[in-house]
Amino acid sequence: MKYLKKQEKKLKHEYFLWLYSWDAETEAPKQASSYSEKQFSVLFEEAYQAESDLKYVEAIEKLFQNLDQIEDKDFQVEIKKAYKNLRIVKKVPKDEYLAYGLLIQQAPAIWHEAKQKNDFNLFAPTLKKIIDFNRKLVKYLETDELKGYDVLLDMYEDDFGVKEYDAFFDIIKEQLVPFAQEVTKQKQKFSRKLTKGVFPAAKQEEFSKYLMDVFHYDQERAVLKESAHPFTSGVSSKDTRITTHYYENNLVSSIFSTIHEMGHAIYELQNDSKYDDTFLHGGTSLGIHESQSRMFENMIGRSFAFWQVHYSKLVELFPHQLKDTTLLDFYRYINQAKKSLIRVEADELTYSLHVLVRYELEKLMINGKIKIEDLPKKWNSLYGKYVGIKPKNDGEGILQDIHWAHGSIGYFPTYALGSAYAAQIYVAMNKDFNVENAIENNDQAKINAWLCEHIHQYAQSKTPKELMGIATKENFNPQYYVDYLKRKFS
Amino acid sequence: MKYLKKQEKKLKHEYFLWLYSWDAETEAPKQASSYSEKQFSVLFEEAYQAESDLKYVEAIEKLFQNLDQIEDKDFQVEIKKAYKNLRIVKKVPKDEYLAYGLLIQQAPAIWHEAKQKNDFNLFAPTLKKIIDFNRKLVKYLETDELKGYDVLLDMYEDDFGVKEYDAFFDIIKEQLVPFAQEVTKQKQKFSRKLTKGVFPAAKQEEFSKYLMDVFHYDQERAVLKESAHPFTSGVSSKDTRITTHYYENNLVSSIFSTIHEMGHAIYELQNDSKYDDTFLHGGTSLGIHESQSRMFENMIGRSFAFWQVHYSKLVELFPHQLKDTTLLDFYRYINQAKKSLIRVEADELTYSLHVLVRYELEKLMINGKIKIEDLPKKWNSLYGKYVGIKPKNDGEGILQDIHWAHGSIGYFPTYALGSAYAAQIYVAMNKDFNVENAIENNDQAKINAWLCEHIHQYAQSKTPKELMGIATKENFNPQYYVDYLKRKFS
Repeated sequence: MKYLKKQEKKLKHEYFLWLYSWDAETEAPKQASSYSEKQFSVLFEEAYQAESDLKYVEAIEKLFQNLDQIEDKDFQVEIKKAYKNLRIVKKVPKDEYLAYGLLIQQAPAIWHEAKQKNDFNLFAPTLKKIIDFNRKLVKYLETDELKGYDVLLDMYEDDFGVKEYDAFFDIIKEQLVPFAQEVTKQKQKFSRKLTKGVFPAAKQEEFSKYLMDVFHYDQERAVLKESAHPFTSGVSSKDTRITTHYYENNLVSSIFSTIHEMGHAIYELQNDSKYDDTFLHGGTSLGIHESQSRMFENMIGRSFAFWQVHYSKLVELFPHQLKDTTLLDFYRYINQAKKSLIRVEADELTYSLHVLVRYELEKLMINGKIKIEDLPKKWNSLYGKYVGIKPKNDGEGILQDIHWAHGSIGYFPTYALGSAYAAQIYVAMNKDFNVENAIENNDQAKINAWLCEHIHQYAQSKTPKELMGIATKENFNPQYYVDYLKRKFS
Repeated sequence: MKYLKKQEKKLKHEYFLWLYSWDAETEAPKQASSYSEKQFSVLFEEAYQAESDLKYVEAIEKLFQNLDQIEDKDFQVEIKKAYKNLRIVKKVPKDEYLAYGLLIQQAPAIWHEAKQKNDFNLFAPTLKKIIDFNRKLVKYLETDELKGYDVLLDMYEDDFGVKEYDAFFDIIKEQLVPFAQEVTKQKQKFSRKLTKGVFPAAKQEEFSKYLMDVFHYDQERAVLKESAHPFTSGVSSKDTRITTHYYENNLVSSIFSTIHEMGHAIYELQNDSKYDDTFLHGGTSLGIHESQSRMFENMIGRSFAFWQVHYSKLVELFPHQLKDTTLLDFYRYINQAKKSLIRVEADELTYSLHVLVRYELEKLMINGKIKIEDLPKKWNSLYGKYVGIKPKNDGEGILQDIHWAHGSIGYFPTYALGSAYAAQIYVAMNKDFNVENAIENNDQAKINAWLCEHIHQYAQSKTPKELMGIATKENFNPQYYVDYLKRKFS
């Protein structure tokens, strides 16, 4: 069958593009890129050609027109997705698309330099090009249902447009912003030793490996490695890898990175393996993906129950550093809430406020309601308004995240949404069994099994909305998230 | 130009096939292969199609017919090589070739099990298929100049056929076999501590990293990693990686593996970078490649001058283990000559005798002069004859090497040839400067520079014969090798 042959070819492209990225980010020596990037771009253009291949386009269109005659439900979903993907090659001029591909390959280095020099002006012309392309992209792809910023939001989360996100963030603004401002006024108490010690990387690595067992991150299908920024990189239900980063002056950064990434990884490893040979392997949306990592990191990994079991192991590895520290000290330390400037270091309570700033800025950018040069000022004023603190320079302000340099616009809001999904899913799971008990009994297998049954197994064969229905028997309701945070931080 | 477009495509295939192997052998989790092998075989078939693509074949043939009109010498060589490579797609039936590709993908696992169980019979049917195909292959590819086993030998070493190897091994048999039998009778003396200590892998790794600096193996273009069997894996003058293996009960195994592989790696890293985008990057033959690794490992790495400089660093890392050991003890330990069964653990003196056994067996196999079931008996008797010791089982006998399972027949003899090349090249280099002085002064840069100028820079643009002419101003002469060993082990 023509379609299957093309699918096989495209899966091969995806596999090798994946392998290239993994190697480039974790292993390749510094100078390798001058050669390997050439090979990457040859493959990348080939992948574009496969996507725009007339026979492939015709096969998809024919299958899509006869969707009701396809019996296999999963295959229907796959064809719908493949059909939707075709809009890029059908509606976006090839030259513009490939030029943009080149632009966002070069942009991260420019962003990186600007960040190092704390100078937004160095990045502004590049960012302008990225925004301009995305505004054009929106025009190319607009439909009766999807307009403006919605077109971009839809790329990361089905059924979530400006209307839905506005409703979600309104609740954050009304309930969380004032609550967080109250909580962050109070000074938290814990042993200073926790922030002043030196924690050898080798020992931290040992603890991360210990955590792999605790979370049942199957060693036969896993890799744990170090990289500058932690990430998950999966290609099949048999191979999903993570990285973490060890800072010797920070005991907990690697711990929560490892747990966070395992949430992502176990989601993909628990995808039904029948999806490996289709386009449906992987997480269904960034929001659902983030719900798994945030649940692992925050709701399980920062719980008192969790550290009741595992704190002694930590003390075993760092006996001198933790000599005068108690379990309660440690628990307070990992759950302190405070006003801060850097999203990736933000605590659980204030995290979504950082995301809110980015969401409001992106709306302005894509709607053409703000000039590039006015972005830093707006950023700073929004931080003051929502987080209650203002950056002193661009490096700790608008230049802190790489996402826009990657061309990812519409991505940020899923971070907050994921945390909210997680709170609602946790409550639903808790109706089936006492989750805290499972954590106390070091029975992560039970939690993984529930998540597999209600979410993971489905891979991309269900939409986020459908999954929330299966897992929680309700529609999405952000009140669970607010209630969870208020309970935890009161 | 049509040819360049095809070349670009083929270089991309080579890059991703390379990346796949590197990942599979060093990093991929155990279960990953069930998915990744599928992607590999799609790419592998695509690479075959690119090689047999009519337009490519026509372009090469046209260029080859007009070779004298090509001004660029390197491009001439490249076209000659490309033309020679075409014989596979032109003369070997596609089905047979791809079926064989599958066979040698599966064979290593079968070999591995047979080795574990010490049972040649488990591997014999697979080996028979491999030999049968190679005998057919010989028939397909035979020309007026190349007949029989020569066809296979030629794949690894230009200008070296049975006639040349017979002459070479005759000298080994006449001069080295009796000499080695004499030397190995004597008992060597060194501290038992060296063979009985425990040497933590982390410390061994530290020493290997120290060696990277000593040998100027440029960290910006290098990776050092661990794998079951050490190897070098290069893809450009900007990216050539090595692996080693740390045995905690063996201090020196990782040291000499690391040095050996660096010999291979520095050869490829010192290729002129203009060859990166051609088919001429890499070592010109396995013999020349092995000459570089053997020179690094044995002539430099096992010299007294070398350890005069670096022994103190080793003592620093293993102060307790080496407390009662002297530099002289250590030197004797790493240069002991003894009868042994396992090629990869053999000392410098007896190494080529192990290779001789394999060469004689391969000749019999390819000429159809021995039955598969008679191989172990013949192996054992040849070991008795040349090495002076007989294996007690197949695991330490005929099953010890993976090469035949990989389909590599005609490969082994290059190991001995490489050592002989090395001895001759060393003498030539020594005419230009005192090499031992350079080693004593920790001035490996001087050695690397000489090798770059006389050998490395040329990549595959010169034949082994041409390179030996450039480097030594003589034809190959194995007497240098015999003299070197006699001097060292007398």
